[in-house]
Amino acid sequence: MLGNFTYCNPTKLYFGADALQNLNLELPRYGSRVVLIYGGGSIKKNGIYDAVMELLRANGKEVAEISGVMPNPTLAKLYEGIEIARAHQADLLLAVGGGSVCDYAKAVSVSVHCQEDPWQKYYLRFEEPDCETLPVGCVLTMVGTGSEMNAGAVITNTETHQKIGHVFADEKIMPRFAILNPNYTMTLPHRQMVAGIYDIFNHICEQYFSGTDDNTSDYISEGLMRSLLHDSRIANRDPHNYEARSNIMWTATWALNTLVSRGKTTDWMVHMIGQAVGAYTNATHGMTLAAVSLPYYRHILPYGLEKFKRFAVEVWKIDPAGKTDEAVAREGLAAMESWMRELGLAMNIRELGADEGMLEGIADATLLLDGGYKKLDRAEVLAILKESLG
Amino acid sequence: MLGNFTYCNPTKLYFGADALQNLNLELPRYGSRVVLIYGGGSIKKNGIYDAVMELLRANGKEVAEISGVMPNPTLAKLYEGIEIARAHQADLLLAVGGGSVCDYAKAVSVSVHCQEDPWQKYYLRFEEPDCETLPVGCVLTMVGTGSEMNAGAVITNTETHQKIGHVFADEKIMPRFAILNPNYTMTLPHRQMVAGIYDIFNHICEQYFSGTDDNTSDYISEGLMRSLLHDSRIANRDPHNYEARSNIMWTATWALNTLVSRGKTTDWMVHMIGQAVGAYTNATHGMTLAAVSLPYYRHILPYGLEKFKRFAVEVWKIDPAGKTDEAVAREGLAAMESWMRELGLAMNIRELGADEGMLEGIADATLLLDGGYKKLDRAEVLAILKESLG
Repeated sequence: MLGNFTYCNPTKLYFGADALQNLNLELPRYGSRVVLIYGGGSIKKNGIYDAVMELLRANGKEVAEISGVMPNPTLAKLYEGIEIARAHQADLLLAVGGGSVCDYAKAVSVSVHCQEDPWQKYYLRFEEPDCETLPVGCVLTMVGTGSEMNAGAVITNTETHQKIGHVFADEKIMPRFAILNPNYTMTLPHRQMVAGIYDIFNHICEQYFSGTDDNTSDYISEGLMRSLLHDSRIANRDPHNYEARSNIMWTATWALNTLVSRGKTTDWMVHMIGQAVGAYTNATHGMTLAAVSLPYYRHILPYGLEKFKRFAVEVWKIDPAGKTDEAVAREGLAAMESWMRELGLAMNIRELGADEGMLEGIADATLLLDGGYKKLDRAEVLAILKESLG
Repeated sequence: MLGNFTYCNPTKLYFGADALQNLNLELPRYGSRVVLIYGGGSIKKNGIYDAVMELLRANGKEVAEISGVMPNPTLAKLYEGIEIARAHQADLLLAVGGGSVCDYAKAVSVSVHCQEDPWQKYYLRFEEPDCETLPVGCVLTMVGTGSEMNAGAVITNTETHQKIGHVFADEKIMPRFAILNPNYTMTLPHRQMVAGIYDIFNHICEQYFSGTDDNTSDYISEGLMRSLLHDSRIANRDPHNYEARSNIMWTATWALNTLVSRGKTTDWMVHMIGQAVGAYTNATHGMTLAAVSLPYYRHILPYGLEKFKRFAVEVWKIDPAGKTDEAVAREGLAAMESWMRELGLAMNIRELGADEGMLEGIADATLLLDGGYKKLDRAEVLAILKESLG
């Protein structure tokens, strides 16, 4: 733990089967004009919309709505939402949905009072807001992204095929509060559940597979990964197991609320490649990560051998006795592959809609980051994509 | 992860060798009247006092001082500090020291504007403040208590031999900010360092040895314990190892900032017995915990066998093959004992100044809590104390 760092995550989390009632504590803190933000309307079928609206009404709120926020929220949708929030003179943005809806709410938050084009300012120039931002609250209905307790917001520009995430520096951009009721995640189709689980797992991997010192963050990461393996196997067989689903929900929050990256470098190349695949195929985020992970990790394994060995022993319980470090490390990735197949994750990008003709474009759209055990060049990304095509 | 819970820890942590400079970011947020709170004056010898005073002056602060806060802050000292803070009309309490100084600052914070006697209200009736509280900032110079990111404050009433901790419910009682510079902890004598390390370890144990479900918190706890074992061994041999000391500092914060207790029950009986020993002997907190731990854990082991086995396997890497659960569990505690002896911790309460004549009184002063694997009665506490006498 060598670097200087700052940690501050003030989001108030209300967790449990009765968590929604805490809106009665939170809503009075804000003005009366609320913009409710949600996705494709599943919350109208499962009763969450009605329950939230009833609490908003009971707290005297005037509500406008932004509905139809898509899984990979687009820049065009962001522009639409900014206009709605401006017209309503919003005091609070209340996101009800998964990470996409929550990310989108944060993007609206920093854009409503912004004089410039948010895509240019936040996603191409990665600047911080210099305007007033709107408070965001969140009722989470899907787990995976950790968006409920961080300042990240991914937006997709469909015209330029760019899916870009900006993690804002100011903790004020984080949701002020988040309602985490594991029961809300239970109506999700199995495929979405496992995609979320892999998203969580990969968030931890992205922060784990970097750096060389034995720091506290890596030990916490191993704990989170082991917890997730345990509960994902239970949830995979029995999606209505409350204990497993609640542990997965809690693990997701801690996998990406900045804790496990403090004081260390991070990788994020699986996300860079996966997001580029997502921009071309519009496939589910967690599935794009799953489909490119093993080719990527097998490619960088020789450069981070010690950590991959540790991953095998500590996370996957591979017995290292009498084996070379590389054999142990590869056994760890093989165990990870078995787990991924057990969950039914996408194991190649072809099944996500990618084909040979897209690979050059996806490689061009992949941001090349420092921080991992091997800084990739474009040719390596292309090779990983070819391997991922299956 | 079954219970409903709330999590909110807004303390802003500035970590690293350059962390103190961040006072320039924080001090302007508060009014000009600061009460500086510190202990026996070691900060005047090591330069921290001068560095802090220079930053306070540069930020235009008028400073009053409460000095001489003792390792187990007394009620009489609390009364004295309340008067100083009132007379100075303090806007900010800046604690520079270890957990005792930080705890003390929080106790002053909730008492300055309190109309009632704080001992009666907060420590005997465990009420929450219904008055204005003063913001607390912290420059940490010793690690162990986690006081820098929680709302706990332990005060000792020397007249009644009661050492009582109150963990306040409102996150506003937590320090608003904390400066964590691992170098500040390096001048501490070896004995204080290892006492702090055991305090950290026991904080995790108190939250780990309770409950039966496989929840995320327990996995995080195992990660924190393994990190601490790793770094404590390095720091024990080489106290100036920055990486080890920084990991220990960071682990301490997360061991007791409420994270690892979320959604589960907790124990805290080692603290109850240890604090009662401390009230009679004024021994260092971490040493009192060390001296009573093994007799306590060996006593409750049969009631929490599954967890003690897990502790042995996951934290101490005991190979369970071909052994009974109890044998595995006892091997784990034996490994823990070896580690404790390696660090040079107090292994009995006699060396801390306790004698046979005190045991009945210490047993009377021990609060009997629910939550552990076995609710103790007074006779069991007495038996554990006799065992701890060595």
